[in-house]
Amino acid sequence: MNGAESLVRTLLASGIDTCFANPGTSEMHFVAALDQIPGLRCVLGLQENVVTGMADGYCRMAEKPAATLLHCGPGLANGLANLHNARRARSAIVNIVGDQATYHRPHDAPLTADTDALARTVSAWTRTTAEAGDVGRDAAIAVQAARAHPGQIATLILPSDASWSAGGRVGEALGAPAPAPLDPGAVETAARLLRNGGRTLLLLAGSAALAPGQGLAHRLARASGAGVMFDFVNARMARGRGRLAAARVPYAMSEAIAALAPFDTILLVGAKPPVGFFAYPGLPSVQYAPTARLHVLSRPEQDGVAALQALVDVIGAPEAPFEASGPAPEPARGAVTPEAFAQTLAALMPEEAIVSDESITFGRALLGATHVAAPHDWLQLTGGAIGDGLPVATGAAIGAGAARRVVSLQADGSAMYSLQSLWTQARENLPCTTIVFSNRRYEILIGEYRAVGATPGPTAMDMLDLGRPDLDWVKLAGGMGVEGARAETMEACADLMRHSFARPGPFLIELAI
Amino acid sequence: MNGAESLVRTLLASGIDTCFANPGTSEMHFVAALDQIPGLRCVLGLQENVVTGMADGYCRMAEKPAATLLHCGPGLANGLANLHNARRARSAIVNIVGDQATYHRPHDAPLTADTDALARTVSAWTRTTAEAGDVGRDAAIAVQAARAHPGQIATLILPSDASWSAGGRVGEALGAPAPAPLDPGAVETAARLLRNGGRTLLLLAGSAALAPGQGLAHRLARASGAGVMFDFVNARMARGRGRLAAARVPYAMSEAIAALAPFDTILLVGAKPPVGFFAYPGLPSVQYAPTARLHVLSRPEQDGVAALQALVDVIGAPEAPFEASGPAPEPARGAVTPEAFAQTLAALMPEEAIVSDESITFGRALLGATHVAAPHDWLQLTGGAIGDGLPVATGAAIGAGAARRVVSLQADGSAMYSLQSLWTQARENLPCTTIVFSNRRYEILIGEYRAVGATPGPTAMDMLDLGRPDLDWVKLAGGMGVEGARAETMEACADLMRHSFARPGPFLIELAI
Repeated sequence: MNGAESLVRTLLASGIDTCFANPGTSEMHFVAALDQIPGLRCVLGLQENVVTGMADGYCRMAEKPAATLLHCGPGLANGLANLHNARRARSAIVNIVGDQATYHRPHDAPLTADTDALARTVSAWTRTTAEAGDVGRDAAIAVQAARAHPGQIATLILPSDASWSAGGRVGEALGAPAPAPLDPGAVETAARLLRNGGRTLLLLAGSAALAPGQGLAHRLARASGAGVMFDFVNARMARGRGRLAAARVPYAMSEAIAALAPFDTILLVGAKPPVGFFAYPGLPSVQYAPTARLHVLSRPEQDGVAALQALVDVIGAPEAPFEASGPAPEPARGAVTPEAFAQTLAALMPEEAIVSDESITFGRALLGATHVAAPHDWLQLTGGAIGDGLPVATGAAIGAGAARRVVSLQADGSAMYSLQSLWTQARENLPCTTIVFSNRRYEILIGEYRAVGATPGPTAMDMLDLGRPDLDWVKLAGGMGVEGARAETMEACADLMRHSFARPGPFLIELAI
Repeated sequence: MNGAESLVRTLLASGIDTCFANPGTSEMHFVAALDQIPGLRCVLGLQENVVTGMADGYCRMAEKPAATLLHCGPGLANGLANLHNARRARSAIVNIVGDQATYHRPHDAPLTADTDALARTVSAWTRTTAEAGDVGRDAAIAVQAARAHPGQIATLILPSDASWSAGGRVGEALGAPAPAPLDPGAVETAARLLRNGGRTLLLLAGSAALAPGQGLAHRLARASGAGVMFDFVNARMARGRGRLAAARVPYAMSEAIAALAPFDTILLVGAKPPVGFFAYPGLPSVQYAPTARLHVLSRPEQDGVAALQALVDVIGAPEAPFEASGPAPEPARGAVTPEAFAQTLAALMPEEAIVSDESITFGRALLGATHVAAPHDWLQLTGGAIGDGLPVATGAAIGAGAARRVVSLQADGSAMYSLQSLWTQARENLPCTTIVFSNRRYEILIGEYRAVGATPGPTAMDMLDLGRPDLDWVKLAGGMGVEGARAETMEACADLMRHSFARPGPFLIELAI
């Protein structure tokens, strides 16, 4: 058994059954081993940021790590932006990066790069395995590292001679580490603050944003009068009817400051202290009141749901059902507006849909308006590195299985970053509906420019405007085997959504906004 | 004057007049400054690997650095693969990377990443400037660092408060550093080896691969009986009629070893010792004979042409005109083969064309067969990180000016890595003809797999085959505003090439191979 074969067998033994890949020469022995050893589903992405984004989306839905297969430092580099997003999502991913043979590296052949340094910028765990006999052991440790609660990025760099040499041994599967224990006194202090900390906010992130955590937070809110909000960015939120109708912290600094101003105390449940996405001249970095008291009920590496349960127990918060949502609306008619689109989405969203939200400016109002939709999961751009919406949707579809429809709400500028995802959606015949909000500009940046104090001039607009020529998303999708159509009214958009939701496989709607 | 304004004025004063950009919020003050201060041409790329690849292509033709404008660590990460290629091409590039404000960074907002670590993986010079008053000075140093002979990557990281704060001062333009002096005795030793070093090879790379260096190498070869070859990868070679008809070191290990086996001595002129692109079990790392003597006539940071001139002087090599090329052939007819395509390219290549070669497997025979073409420059994938062909072509067109036609010879798998380049070609109406060799698979990897000793099975082919669905390059180009057509015979290909060469602006030919 060579090192590559021991790697495949170890991954399988450790519970990894999906590998998102774009291999190269230094990974050929691994690819050959995959041919010999059945059980690992391999999904090709035509650029590595698609590969890593798919692994992120997969983990958010499957709640276990996938592997990626990447080629040398530059292949890893291409996938770093979505690994950055995955790190912010706290997704579990095991990157396998093939690299130059150990004895060849000193010759500095053209593809040689500092793979280790690149890996460390996003990975909680990085190791280069030089000997075939160690590959299995190290792969098992990598999987365990990725599974550290709630999830981490582990990168195993494999020089090609470690893959092809004999002496491979299958690594024993290692248990997933338990979440870190709650901090001593964290629950008791939270209980005291809930009782007499003034106006108090429960700020949810991570696993606390799913249905069980929402139910516990709602009980605490009802029993104590506290407010509940979601963090601005969340890897996955349970949304729709029968879920908590809480807002998330707004993106815009002034709105976020206004939303958090009333609170004397903020209990952080898997969330970090809320800060601005960027700094702005004359505005503070933090979004909460300068006098507010922040208390960490649970850190991300702890079990936020267990922390909420313990807090419920301490204060004796009774069961409290969610308020009933109103009825689902009818699809909107007429002109395309954010509100009309939100209404149509709420009306037509399939049961247990998965929303991959990279809608940026157009979508800021969507989350509130879709509480009346069928129950669904909502996945966000967690790290701000645009280009994750389509890959995350693609991986989420694979992680959740064919029964769940994935709806990508996708800004056009961001979609161009990783449009190759559409090809994988076609290759795998995934139930992915992509709705591209086509405004043909980086609208968010035009807003940011105005915040600098002026209207963009021609040089600025050369960098902020995506027209001249206009992108044609129906042609782009068609070029990758995905059927699509353009809509300019809400009626046309609703018809295309119904059409797509009723049939298997991917579809793209270019919605003129 | 704020820091951003001082940056723009310093870049202009230092001779930078082109900026390839994909800005974000942290760069808005720079964008605003560009509106206020005329003189910097800004070219938008819809993904950062397009941006950095364009800067590489620009420098290869303009022979001076462009700036790039990138957004935070993840924006830089997206552009690293083509910065890797640019580093191998020894192109001069000044990256401007906007980042979190100095006081905001400790809050670890979602887009925060280790920008400095990412930059250092490809940059010879990296600095983060914290104060507005230092931005001009540091920008001038960055340009000087980029201009270190023959070219380097310099990355200036600008926290947004350094951009927006008052106190900016224009940095004084600094002189470009001279090439490092030749090593003592390097020329004399080379002369001795040319006289009595046995069978000797002059291996050219860098500036020695352009016309003056070729002429000097040819004189040395005629005077001494030495052979001349080009390195396997070259940022830019002068080719065609009236240039040296030398081969480059082959890609395949066995062919390279055979080509270099006859030589007792190899004189390296800007070239590194020839080694395999990858290691293979049972094959050596180096491609020259184990007994061969290697002598460095000039290192890349030295002036290879001056070294050749000095050697010509020492051995008294007389003027020696190149052998006349044969007449240009007629375009080929019938089936599409590498040989037929090479013949047609040689027949139709416009005068002073620029070839951006990312043809990978299909194109290995092209270089030899086009010696009878009109004089042209040939740009190669220097670092092996696929996805540079289209961005380099786009930047080369800008660097060379509208009078020169750029011909991209482009493998389909690699083209998918940075297809967004086509949009910039349309936006800027660049004279770029893209010929996509559409074999719908990673042919190079199928070859590598066979080298492992087997025929790829279904799992492997899932990762090596780009069909299911087939990419439609005419639709993809059309989606980005570039007209295109598909050819399945050499006659059709020739007609489309003539059509494209005769009119301004971009065009894409999908050539079924």
